[in-house]
Amino acid sequence: MSAKAEENAAGDEQQVVTPWEVAAKPGAKIDYDKLIDQFGCQRLEQNLIDRVQRLTGRPPHVFLRRGVFFAHRDFEEILSAYERGDKFYLYTGRGPSSEALHLGHLVPFMFTRYLQEAFKVPLVIQLTDDEKCMWKNLSVEESQRLARENAKDIIACGFDITKTFIFSDFDYVGGSFYKNMVKVAKCVTYNKVVGIFGFTGEDHIGKISFPPVQAVPSFPSSFPHLFPGKDHLRCLIPCAIDQDPYFRMTRDVAPRIGYQKPALIESSFFPALQGETGKMSASDPNSAIYVTDSAKTIKNKINKYAFSGGQDSLEKHRQYGANLEVDIPVKYLSFFLEDDEELEHIKKEYSAGRMLTGEVKKRLADVLTELVERHQAARAAVTNEMVDAFMAVRPLPHMFN
Amino acid sequence: MSAKAEENAAGDEQQVVTPWEVAAKPGAKIDYDKLIDQFGCQRLEQNLIDRVQRLTGRPPHVFLRRGVFFAHRDFEEILSAYERGDKFYLYTGRGPSSEALHLGHLVPFMFTRYLQEAFKVPLVIQLTDDEKCMWKNLSVEESQRLARENAKDIIACGFDITKTFIFSDFDYVGGSFYKNMVKVAKCVTYNKVVGIFGFTGEDHIGKISFPPVQAVPSFPSSFPHLFPGKDHLRCLIPCAIDQDPYFRMTRDVAPRIGYQKPALIESSFFPALQGETGKMSASDPNSAIYVTDSAKTIKNKINKYAFSGGQDSLEKHRQYGANLEVDIPVKYLSFFLEDDEELEHIKKEYSAGRMLTGEVKKRLADVLTELVERHQAARAAVTNEMVDAFMAVRPLPHMFN
Repeated sequence: MSAKAEENAAGDEQQVVTPWEVAAKPGAKIDYDKLIDQFGCQRLEQNLIDRVQRLTGRPPHVFLRRGVFFAHRDFEEILSAYERGDKFYLYTGRGPSSEALHLGHLVPFMFTRYLQEAFKVPLVIQLTDDEKCMWKNLSVEESQRLARENAKDIIACGFDITKTFIFSDFDYVGGSFYKNMVKVAKCVTYNKVVGIFGFTGEDHIGKISFPPVQAVPSFPSSFPHLFPGKDHLRCLIPCAIDQDPYFRMTRDVAPRIGYQKPALIESSFFPALQGETGKMSASDPNSAIYVTDSAKTIKNKINKYAFSGGQDSLEKHRQYGANLEVDIPVKYLSFFLEDDEELEHIKKEYSAGRMLTGEVKKRLADVLTELVERHQAARAAVTNEMVDAFMAVRPLPHMFN
Repeated sequence: MSAKAEENAAGDEQQVVTPWEVAAKPGAKIDYDKLIDQFGCQRLEQNLIDRVQRLTGRPPHVFLRRGVFFAHRDFEEILSAYERGDKFYLYTGRGPSSEALHLGHLVPFMFTRYLQEAFKVPLVIQLTDDEKCMWKNLSVEESQRLARENAKDIIACGFDITKTFIFSDFDYVGGSFYKNMVKVAKCVTYNKVVGIFGFTGEDHIGKISFPPVQAVPSFPSSFPHLFPGKDHLRCLIPCAIDQDPYFRMTRDVAPRIGYQKPALIESSFFPALQGETGKMSASDPNSAIYVTDSAKTIKNKINKYAFSGGQDSLEKHRQYGANLEVDIPVKYLSFFLEDDEELEHIKKEYSAGRMLTGEVKKRLADVLTELVERHQAARAAVTNEMVDAFMAVRPLPHMFN
């Protein structure tokens, strides 16, 4: 009996975090400390955040200050090298499975944009249309269409076109990228991917073939037009921690094929409106705020679905105050309300019972409406020509300027 | 217990024929009738060979007349369509694992060249450098170098450059080819490839990812520069029967992704000098005649290693004659001595004991020396520019003329 099977037999249900499933124990929140232990990554300590501030000469992003990005692998090495004058490149991505992005999808891109600006480094963004074609059983054409639609939302986040290459796997796999896929695949047994990703014999071989596709953008030689002769350039991957299995595998393989291990900086999940037992899901429209939602929809969704830590009656609320640990409006504000003082004020008043759920929800609706409307305006300005320009296979001559 | 495991437990050792291993039962020859049953292909009957002669207006190739190509799938449909005016294209390939080809490697190319000339059809030749990099643990660079060296030998077989596209997987995988790989991979479970190819959990995922790479040249849409708008063009694959598992899988998948099944015409194995228990292997230099061998080496190898069906003593030989069933010189002559009358004469005289092993071996050495020297001269004339020209991704405007 495997260790996992034994645990299940003992009735001790575990939290599940894989690239395809995020579920806390029944009735519980995701235990991030346990995830750090389980995955073997490091906690992102305050001294590293201070160092980011010092090296970039600007205040750390709200996602750093508030622990949204909370774990890392070798981020310290990246900073030390940067301090010595050695740049790096950023790699992040998206599986284009739905037309509209929700707020959870924006988190890594907002943070990546900040990293690009703060460190002045190039960025590659992988659209895994091949993955979604295989996992969601979409046609090739539909996956590619969604990839381009999603690219518009990504571009709307404000990336610098002189430092950013966005690519679709269906368009870009080949050449040096494919050679690196083969090099990685040679080093990983079927048993190994079963251990990492939980595949079974009934899974199709497309799934089993995919991990190298997500692995190889970690290696600069996969982008000969971007990084010619820079095979030892380090890569930093900002992503949600559910993507860690791909990069554990990548880091395991890298030294065996003569490449640098990618470093990671990993975020917690953006929770569903209904509460913090998993991540926001695009497949349940009532669990998520979409970047396409109207002000009215946002207000209604928050009022109707956002799980409140406030008390059942006004009387009890005034007496006991809100439980901020489970309160979704406060959680969302901690992602998107930039003003630290105002956030502290809300948390203090709300937990003391002087502020009501309705007031907090109103403030959240305003904050998200502003964010979403700003995004919608930016996206409306993204033309097909701009998508083509970001996705053109080209050198980026000013990528480190 | 699986059927296979049960057979082994019963002590009844089976012949093994996979793309990586060809072995008869101990002490026996490969049983091709059994292989036809096991694989579910059809025997190539005389009426089809007659039809080839009628349709092409030329005598059928010696490999057809003498049963070297002995099995098929849907070859009859290909001929019927051809008769109605519908052309097809040819697809064959080679795994470039060694510097020099041996005679067994030439068999499919000699036959494919005949088919191209006789039917006036285009041809794609896949060099699976990715496969050999993974199976033989060669570096990417070494695999690609061998692919180009092997391409020179292939070109030396006399293919028509206006109708032939040779490609290396490392160079060509991508675009429509990769999209078709994903479409195929989606339709094949891990359990299925284990059943077909015998992979185990300790095999690396590169091996598990490979079958779609060999499958998709069967589909014209993998070559948009060659067959634009001809997605329903039929494909005919001449190959040795050990490649059948790849194309059983391909034929199973094709209708599910809206593609035509490829047809096949399949050969027996070219036997080792030591006898007909397997196929000639490049890894044992004394089992094979190489296209680089000198006249003297050929003569020595034949005299020293070619398994003879002649009797132990001259006296017994004159009395009983040679056993042609196991005689390798006669077998080789039946591949490469084109003159039917002379071959019949040798077989008759040799089996009657009037001709001696030494005489037959001498005739074989002459035939093979002529063949190999002709090949060497043709190969010496193949320049790097010619390799580039055959491998250029380009339209073939005259491919059906």
